[in-house]
Amino acid sequence: MDCARNQSGEMKDKVKPIKLFWPTVPVAVDAIILHRGKIVLTKRSIKPYKGQFVFPGGFMVPGETSKKACIREAKEESGLDVKIIKLIGVFDDPHRDPRGHTLSVAYLCKSVGGKLKPQEGESSEVKLFSPKEIKKIKLGFDHEQIVKELELA
Amino acid sequence: MDCARNQSGEMKDKVKPIKLFWPTVPVAVDAIILHRGKIVLTKRSIKPYKGQFVFPGGFMVPGETSKKACIREAKEESGLDVKIIKLIGVFDDPHRDPRGHTLSVAYLCKSVGGKLKPQEGESSEVKLFSPKEIKKIKLGFDHEQIVKELELA
Repeated sequence: MDCARNQSGEMKDKVKPIKLFWPTVPVAVDAIILHRGKIVLTKRSIKPYKGQFVFPGGFMVPGETSKKACIREAKEESGLDVKIIKLIGVFDDPHRDPRGHTLSVAYLCKSVGGKLKPQEGESSEVKLFSPKEIKKIKLGFDHEQIVKELELA
Repeated sequence: MDCARNQSGEMKDKVKPIKLFWPTVPVAVDAIILHRGKIVLTKRSIKPYKGQFVFPGGFMVPGETSKKACIREAKEESGLDVKIIKLIGVFDDPHRDPRGHTLSVAYLCKSVGGKLKPQEGESSEVKLFSPKEIKKIKLGFDHEQIVKELELA
C-alpha cells in the first residue's frame, strides 16, 4: 500500500490506536499467496523499489488485526481473495524500507477466489512465479528474507 | 512499559519511523522468560490491569528490532538478561489494551544473567510461576492468549 493512500486514516471497528508520547514504528503486512501452485508477486510502479517485484502487502489500519489487514491488502494488490495458512514471521530491520522504519508481519496464504489483476497506481504487473524462480529474482524491500524464512519452515 | 515513560521519543540507531498520513498501531513486545524452570510475571502497580500479573513487556522504539526491544524490556521490567529462543506469535486484537489498539510480538526467552527485581513505578512485584500455576491466574491484557499459543507450540 502506498503512503498516498488511506489518507483519511480510516478506522476499522471504531477502535483507535493507543496514544503514545514518542514515535512509533508502523505495522505493515506481507501476503505470500499460493495460487495454482505458484506464488504471487507484484511489480512496483512507484518508489521505492520501482520496477522490482515484491509480495503484495501494505499498512495495517487501527481496528483491524494483522490477519485481516493481510487479507484486505492481498485483495487490493492482487485481486485475489485469500485465506491465511500461517504466520511466517516478523520482519523489522530498521533499514528494511528506505522511507523509514516499519515492522512487517508476513503470512503464508492461499487463494480461495477472485481474479489476478494489478493494482492501479502502485503496481504495473501481477505475476505468478514458482518457488525456484523467486529465488533467482532480486526482490524489493527485505522480501528475500521472507523467502529464506519460508524455506526454513 | 508505561505510556508515561520514554517521553523523549528515544531513537535507537538514529533511524526514524516511516511517516504515514493516517494513525498507526504501536508495536509492543512481550517476553515470556524461562528462569530456573519457571516463568517470570510482574504484578502491575498502575492502570490498566492494576494488581494483576502480566508478562514483562513494553513498546518498541524506532531503530530497534522487536527482538532487541524484547531483550531491553525484559531487563528493564524483570532485572534479567535474556536470550530469545523463538517467536511465539503476534497478538493484535483491537481490544487487547483498553487504552487503545496495539500489536504485540511475543517471544519465548531464557534468562542468561541478571537478578530478579521489580521495576519501580510500574510493577510492585516480580515473581516466578510454574506453567501449571500460570494457567490458574487471571492475567492482564490478552496474556492468557499468549499462554494458550505457547501450549500449542
